[in-house]
Amino acid sequence: MYKYLDNINKPSDLKRLSLIEMDELAKEIRKFLIKSVSKTGGHLASNLGVVELTLALHSVYDTTKDKIVFDVGHQSYVHKLLTGRKEKFSTLRQYEGLSGFPKRKESVHDCFETGHSSTSISAGLGIALGRDFCKDKFKVVSVIGDGALTGGLALEGLNHLGSTNTDMLVILNDNDMSICENVGGLSNSLYNIRMTKAYRKFSKNMINFISSVPVVGVKATNAAVRIKDSLKHMVMPGAFFEEMGIKYFGPVDGHDYKSIVHALKELNNIEGPKILHVLTTKGKGYKYAQDNPSDYHGVSKFDIAKGVISSSQLTYSSVAGNTLNSIFERDSKSVAITAAMISGTGLDILFEKHSKRVIDVGIAEEHAVTLAAGLATSGIKPYFVVYSTFLQRAYDQILHDVALQDLPVTLLIDRAGLVGEDGETHHGVFDIGFLSTIPNLTIMSPRDLVELQDMIEFSHSYNHPLAIRYPRGKAVNLSSHVRDSRLMKWEWIYEEPKIAIVAIGKMVETAIKIRESMALLGIKIAVVNARCIKPMDDLSIQKLSETMDYIFSLEDHVYSGGFSSKLKQKLFDSGYIGKFKSFSLPDEFIEHGNTEILLSKYGLDNNTIHKNIIECIRYNEGYEEIS
Amino acid sequence: MYKYLDNINKPSDLKRLSLIEMDELAKEIRKFLIKSVSKTGGHLASNLGVVELTLALHSVYDTTKDKIVFDVGHQSYVHKLLTGRKEKFSTLRQYEGLSGFPKRKESVHDCFETGHSSTSISAGLGIALGRDFCKDKFKVVSVIGDGALTGGLALEGLNHLGSTNTDMLVILNDNDMSICENVGGLSNSLYNIRMTKAYRKFSKNMINFISSVPVVGVKATNAAVRIKDSLKHMVMPGAFFEEMGIKYFGPVDGHDYKSIVHALKELNNIEGPKILHVLTTKGKGYKYAQDNPSDYHGVSKFDIAKGVISSSQLTYSSVAGNTLNSIFERDSKSVAITAAMISGTGLDILFEKHSKRVIDVGIAEEHAVTLAAGLATSGIKPYFVVYSTFLQRAYDQILHDVALQDLPVTLLIDRAGLVGEDGETHHGVFDIGFLSTIPNLTIMSPRDLVELQDMIEFSHSYNHPLAIRYPRGKAVNLSSHVRDSRLMKWEWIYEEPKIAIVAIGKMVETAIKIRESMALLGIKIAVVNARCIKPMDDLSIQKLSETMDYIFSLEDHVYSGGFSSKLKQKLFDSGYIGKFKSFSLPDEFIEHGNTEILLSKYGLDNNTIHKNIIECIRYNEGYEEIS
Repeated sequence: MYKYLDNINKPSDLKRLSLIEMDELAKEIRKFLIKSVSKTGGHLASNLGVVELTLALHSVYDTTKDKIVFDVGHQSYVHKLLTGRKEKFSTLRQYEGLSGFPKRKESVHDCFETGHSSTSISAGLGIALGRDFCKDKFKVVSVIGDGALTGGLALEGLNHLGSTNTDMLVILNDNDMSICENVGGLSNSLYNIRMTKAYRKFSKNMINFISSVPVVGVKATNAAVRIKDSLKHMVMPGAFFEEMGIKYFGPVDGHDYKSIVHALKELNNIEGPKILHVLTTKGKGYKYAQDNPSDYHGVSKFDIAKGVISSSQLTYSSVAGNTLNSIFERDSKSVAITAAMISGTGLDILFEKHSKRVIDVGIAEEHAVTLAAGLATSGIKPYFVVYSTFLQRAYDQILHDVALQDLPVTLLIDRAGLVGEDGETHHGVFDIGFLSTIPNLTIMSPRDLVELQDMIEFSHSYNHPLAIRYPRGKAVNLSSHVRDSRLMKWEWIYEEPKIAIVAIGKMVETAIKIRESMALLGIKIAVVNARCIKPMDDLSIQKLSETMDYIFSLEDHVYSGGFSSKLKQKLFDSGYIGKFKSFSLPDEFIEHGNTEILLSKYGLDNNTIHKNIIECIRYNEGYEEIS
Repeated sequence: MYKYLDNINKPSDLKRLSLIEMDELAKEIRKFLIKSVSKTGGHLASNLGVVELTLALHSVYDTTKDKIVFDVGHQSYVHKLLTGRKEKFSTLRQYEGLSGFPKRKESVHDCFETGHSSTSISAGLGIALGRDFCKDKFKVVSVIGDGALTGGLALEGLNHLGSTNTDMLVILNDNDMSICENVGGLSNSLYNIRMTKAYRKFSKNMINFISSVPVVGVKATNAAVRIKDSLKHMVMPGAFFEEMGIKYFGPVDGHDYKSIVHALKELNNIEGPKILHVLTTKGKGYKYAQDNPSDYHGVSKFDIAKGVISSSQLTYSSVAGNTLNSIFERDSKSVAITAAMISGTGLDILFEKHSKRVIDVGIAEEHAVTLAAGLATSGIKPYFVVYSTFLQRAYDQILHDVALQDLPVTLLIDRAGLVGEDGETHHGVFDIGFLSTIPNLTIMSPRDLVELQDMIEFSHSYNHPLAIRYPRGKAVNLSSHVRDSRLMKWEWIYEEPKIAIVAIGKMVETAIKIRESMALLGIKIAVVNARCIKPMDDLSIQKLSETMDYIFSLEDHVYSGGFSSKLKQKLFDSGYIGKFKSFSLPDEFIEHGNTEILLSKYGLDNNTIHKNIIECIRYNEGYEEIS
């Protein structure tokens, strides 16, 4: 079906192609990607942007020994295509299928696993220094986007790299985007380089074009500043990297295969740490994606001819954004912070209406939290809206900068629980664990969209650190409004004697369904919505302890450090002598796949929980006695 | 006693002094600091370095409204002296005394609390943006060292700052040191600025000297590179900051009060974000400290005439360093990583003998961990030696880069438990909490120096992520060697029926002492050394559960997420029906003070535990029945 692609089963197959054929192959790869991702969903725009770059990398390097670390890794599809995983693309991101990120167990060509941003320079440097210690010979290349470069980890890595003499290449894949439009002073600096056409040349001896502008007798005046500004990118293109001690080369056109190959080959002869600045276009070759790369960053299935149709479905994210919007209308001192995730976290409308009060700090979660702490001391009410998995980055800032000073910062934690297809690097299943040991921090989780609204409204007047965790996806509406400190108490949705299910967040809906299916068997089950995870509701625990023979807990979080383990301790303290069984995720990294499949695999679907509860009761006293 | 200092009770008192008197005051402050810190201990060298800078800041700004954020904060002593806390200096860092760091509750002049490095730019930017939102008028200044600047959080903050127009000043206090000598490409760049004498001028209109070197018709050759390199610091001093979008000024002599005041006043008229580069000498004015600033970073009491005498006492840190040294002698593929803490973590000798295999990454804990992950994939055995409190920074890197790939990285976690005088920002009392939820990670804690040696030796052949936590201070020697997987099982030091104390790390010694004092009363207590905290030793737990009526747990960690809470769950699961009581720190931030005093305050001293155990037993069954 594909004239060239069909014959590429390993990188060395590329050697047979002429330059013209390589261009044809690039086109075929784009076709393949668009077609394949339109069926499976996945990261489209970033992969369309790196077709020629990846072809060039595999033409110059041999990844059975050379190491390429793809930062974030969602742009590794072309790499996977070229390294023998073409046939598996129909299983992309599906349960037991091809991962959407590099995985060592998938291929020898995947040398280091990524998922979170900004790790590739540190990892690559570790590999390069390790190689030097072992006196091995191979090349190390880290491929990092300009968005990921704003992460502190990447900057720490650059700073260290620049002080070494190790042979390592950083490829800056500059598309002027992270997931959203890129931000920061550094981004402006890169923009200036891009705009200086003179640098588009990449001369043979790798020296950047230096303009022959005389700078004679310039006085120390404001005019001098302007001259200096215009000079600096001529005298020092990539000054930022050069100041870090890293040789800068580029920029080169990232869609010109020949130029990239030429540059990579030349750079193989340059010693020490160096950076190649490659200009690419996110979404290249698919008009819809090229025009709106943000919309095509991560996509679900779509119709190629029509493009992605944005859903108007209510999600937890959109409810969070809309609730903030209503607060922002009333209170001019409310401010939202995002780390390059305006759209993903549902802040689009808020950003449209109150753009000045939505601060996008770029991929910089640590800074986001400490910035929020600073804002709070100035009398601002800051909301940091962030995915659970990325908040892991800011653990110390939450503890040291927010909680220690007991500042009224609210963390809106989206994508808590299983996220599905992005898999093990992205599931939000550790947040209760790492947050609940932090003093002064209150943790809540809503069971539906109404409660999410209520909690965000409550947070506005709550004068301490508060975290609200909610899941990815469609928001359901079950309850009616409570907007006061009763939210810190648990909700006894159904009261019954003897048997109770205590659940958090979206698992409350599951609990209610199990209650219903149990009722058909004549078994009556109380359902408690443990909406405040920390502090726990001691009165409810006392009541559970005193009145129940069976307590079952439900959570979409790993067991260790999670809600169930904490409830168990509390029940133990209270002198509870009945049976307790928890339904949590196991203490493992959870693979990728459809959330329903994963919940089912780990025994957190309605049927399995129903069955296990029945068995537990039967085992202990026989079914008949229960009703 | 001090002619000038005695009359300074608030910053505005400085206004009365002439320039000559200000110089005299600076001398008096140095005398005061040396005398005072020689009695209380504390951070000396960094404070001696910022005397003129702090005087200048308080002459130009009014900190009842203007905000100065001191990065790390251990250099805030002069600030405290000038803001009405002179009389309290004899209580510095002591229990209920003056904190060694800025504290909001201590003074209105302390606007933001610090302790961990690299937070000041983000916090300052938050304060500045908050001010802008509130339409307030005041100045915001962040004072950050060149060492702290290598932290990713600071770099994220700079990048964001550079894209704003907010009025904020960053003072780069450049002493070419962090705690150790500074590292990284950025540090080299600053060094180049320092060495270029032309920039020592600070002209009235704030424009840096631009050399009148003609650059006509330079060809793209290697010669051009050299010319470019020599040019760049002339055309773009502070290019790194300018590239970030921040106006750079300086450097100025940080011990010339008049120059700094002049610069600060001029900068008040420059809009937007700007940085003032100030050159200071750590330890200035006290010969010993100036010659060996690292030794005078944090000091205990010392004799002013003789200086600090380095102790030859065995500490957990030195034992860790020496054990690594013995491994390094045998295995050329072992590598240690430190984040600017060679001396503090006991790596001095290792560094002396194997300097190439001790990688100091500067203050960059996240990078350190991901670098270790990269090294591990290259066949190196990496050890990251780090204080517990600073490891909080690298939570996501441990989880996402090390544990997810199950890489054999060993974390040697020094200063676990209470650290004493550095107080709430520095106690290592959260590590079990945040580490134990991470899959694949094993956590151990040795009860003495022999066990620490054994665990480090064991780690060398252990092929998974491993964390070993050990306390600050003097190491005791109680046990004999075990260097195999039995370390993953608990040690039943004394077997007895009925009553057991299960303790971790240094608390095992306490448990043994309590056993001894109980024995005098005829009460026999088993002592279990829970040396492997994760995974727990299920056989020991089963035995405890089946044979004990009373189980007491001891740990130097907060209760939430700590060892006791996990043991309790396990006992509950095992069907234990006896009594359980835990001795842990409360779920609060613990203040500064002598460790013994703090342990006693929180009920973790021998006497209190003894008393509580007795009471528990008496309450439940009467004293006589026990023996």
